[in-house]
Amino acid sequence: MRTVTVPLGERSYSISIGSKLLAQLGSECQKLTLGRRCAVITDTNVARHYARHALRSLTAAGFEPLLVKIPAGERAKRMQIVERCYEQLAKHRLERKSFIVALGGGVVGDLAGFVAASYLRGIDFVQVPTTLLAQVDSSVGGKVGVNLKAGKNLVGAFHQPRLVLCDVDTLATLPQRELRAGLAEVIKYGIIYDRAFFERLERDLPQLLKLESEAVADVVARCCEIKADVVGKDERESGLRAILNFGHTVGHALEAISGYGKYLHGEAISIGQVAAARLSNAFTGLPATEAMRIEEAFARAGLPASVRLKQPDLARLARAMQLDKKVSGGDVRFVLARRIGEVVWGQKVPVEDVIKALHGRGK
Amino acid sequence: MRTVTVPLGERSYSISIGSKLLAQLGSECQKLTLGRRCAVITDTNVARHYARHALRSLTAAGFEPLLVKIPAGERAKRMQIVERCYEQLAKHRLERKSFIVALGGGVVGDLAGFVAASYLRGIDFVQVPTTLLAQVDSSVGGKVGVNLKAGKNLVGAFHQPRLVLCDVDTLATLPQRELRAGLAEVIKYGIIYDRAFFERLERDLPQLLKLESEAVADVVARCCEIKADVVGKDERESGLRAILNFGHTVGHALEAISGYGKYLHGEAISIGQVAAARLSNAFTGLPATEAMRIEEAFARAGLPASVRLKQPDLARLARAMQLDKKVSGGDVRFVLARRIGEVVWGQKVPVEDVIKALHGRGK
Repeated sequence: MRTVTVPLGERSYSISIGSKLLAQLGSECQKLTLGRRCAVITDTNVARHYARHALRSLTAAGFEPLLVKIPAGERAKRMQIVERCYEQLAKHRLERKSFIVALGGGVVGDLAGFVAASYLRGIDFVQVPTTLLAQVDSSVGGKVGVNLKAGKNLVGAFHQPRLVLCDVDTLATLPQRELRAGLAEVIKYGIIYDRAFFERLERDLPQLLKLESEAVADVVARCCEIKADVVGKDERESGLRAILNFGHTVGHALEAISGYGKYLHGEAISIGQVAAARLSNAFTGLPATEAMRIEEAFARAGLPASVRLKQPDLARLARAMQLDKKVSGGDVRFVLARRIGEVVWGQKVPVEDVIKALHGRGK
Repeated sequence: MRTVTVPLGERSYSISIGSKLLAQLGSECQKLTLGRRCAVITDTNVARHYARHALRSLTAAGFEPLLVKIPAGERAKRMQIVERCYEQLAKHRLERKSFIVALGGGVVGDLAGFVAASYLRGIDFVQVPTTLLAQVDSSVGGKVGVNLKAGKNLVGAFHQPRLVLCDVDTLATLPQRELRAGLAEVIKYGIIYDRAFFERLERDLPQLLKLESEAVADVVARCCEIKADVVGKDERESGLRAILNFGHTVGHALEAISGYGKYLHGEAISIGQVAAARLSNAFTGLPATEAMRIEEAFARAGLPASVRLKQPDLARLARAMQLDKKVSGGDVRFVLARRIGEVVWGQKVPVEDVIKALHGRGK
């Protein structure tokens, strides 16, 4: 088992990464000061595979878990489902010392985390991410929330978990498409923070796609280390944390205009990162060869690299980008790379250039 | 104009209390670092009297306000209305630096505050309370939230305003019943914290009911001082802040079982405080004469002192008390008085004794 600490003073917490960890959920929770009553929030797909294991482990450790199931998929990440969760927690008398276990992918973690952040003005929660995307990204860092009709993650909170438990065995039941989507965030860490890690991925992608356990645990741990480092320096995204949004302005906008159904998050930010690499070549001096290597890495992971949009979708995309939370004072600002492993944030980019980059052309 | 500071480090803020302050809303906001775009959230009743003034003042100071109206009354304090507000903010592209002005009573302040706490993971907000209850209590201290079917304020956040502006002139349009309800919180401050203030109220209640401007501003300022002092010492209610809940466990439960329509909050906590005074006589040594003075103060303010419930309402009341956020480990714990001006918190009380006290009898 590998352990990474997210350094946030008295709200610091550990991320545990390894095999067979789900069986240790109860005993790991015992080490924290938590009430007995808890709720495991999960979706109908994940419930089928892992709810029983999670409940058994918690019960064996003396906890009294309630199972709360939400529909599977990004469309569940909305206020109506949040409200249904609240009502179930209240019905089962979860109180201030009770806690929530988020068992599932990013949708479950974000939604259950927001429920935990706001029920009784905030109770504790534990993340048990079961997708690659959630293990390397959404379960770490305390950003929780739901979507509005108008855009993704427009409602939420900063609410840090007490513990994150990444059982890499749970990736075995993940559809291939979701595994590939998770790799989009993995590759991102190389681009924004760690050139050697990017090069390692260029070499090891085949093993990762075959889910070789040690390789996966190593990679997940490195991603968590990078994220913990960034979040520890800038919890509330007043500066550095913005680099984690490389490729996300376009990615979020694509997801929004396609109704959160067509693209997986990882696919949308793959397109967004390739576009950002092209813009980086045009605006921040990323060498063309490196932009090409970035594009190839996503292609080798089986991820999409561009999208061809016609009016009125182009206009909708532009509007959606302007609603992005990273907008400030009306300008669309991007995270762009100078070289692989080093990015800058706050770069203004005209919308026309974004469109060109999306269609596979530089400036 | 009187000014009270809520001492919370870098999140400290001022409460301004006085006449004709609404006209200064825009210029007061200018002194803070806020974006130009903002939303004034208010209810349909308050809008009729004051929305125009608020919008004019903000516009004159260079802000771009959007007016968001919610239905009047406690029933509006629910997730569905929160969601409607979010959608309007998103539609009008409020961004991270935008802010919300809560113009109205406690319902508006709690709901708009929760919207501000969660929209884009939290944006700034300004409280402009227009009821006595909101001026002396709910607008100060950062507790925001909404009700669930299962109970009051079961969802929410701690989100401090950047500024509170109490224009006592706005009390002129307040129905007499609401003014009296506000006095329930005013009297509470005397009981829990300031014996001399309680005695002053015993003397000055008639002037307050006649809304004599200076007397009202003085009293509002003293209440805000006490609340600021308590909140400054214990923002997140891990201890001392609990004393502000004197009379509230019963009060909240009464509101919940009567469907948030029958009693105003002030009326419910008037009944709750009289019950708490009787329990204080039985459990924490409050002299019978002082319990009687407390009961008389509420009666002179024209507030109800007891309630007669039959089964199954009694059973529902007991259940509702057990769901209260102040419950911990299953016990119902009360804030009780030792003498007027001094309370203790965490006193366990059997439900039977609560029922007796509600019906006008001691232990």
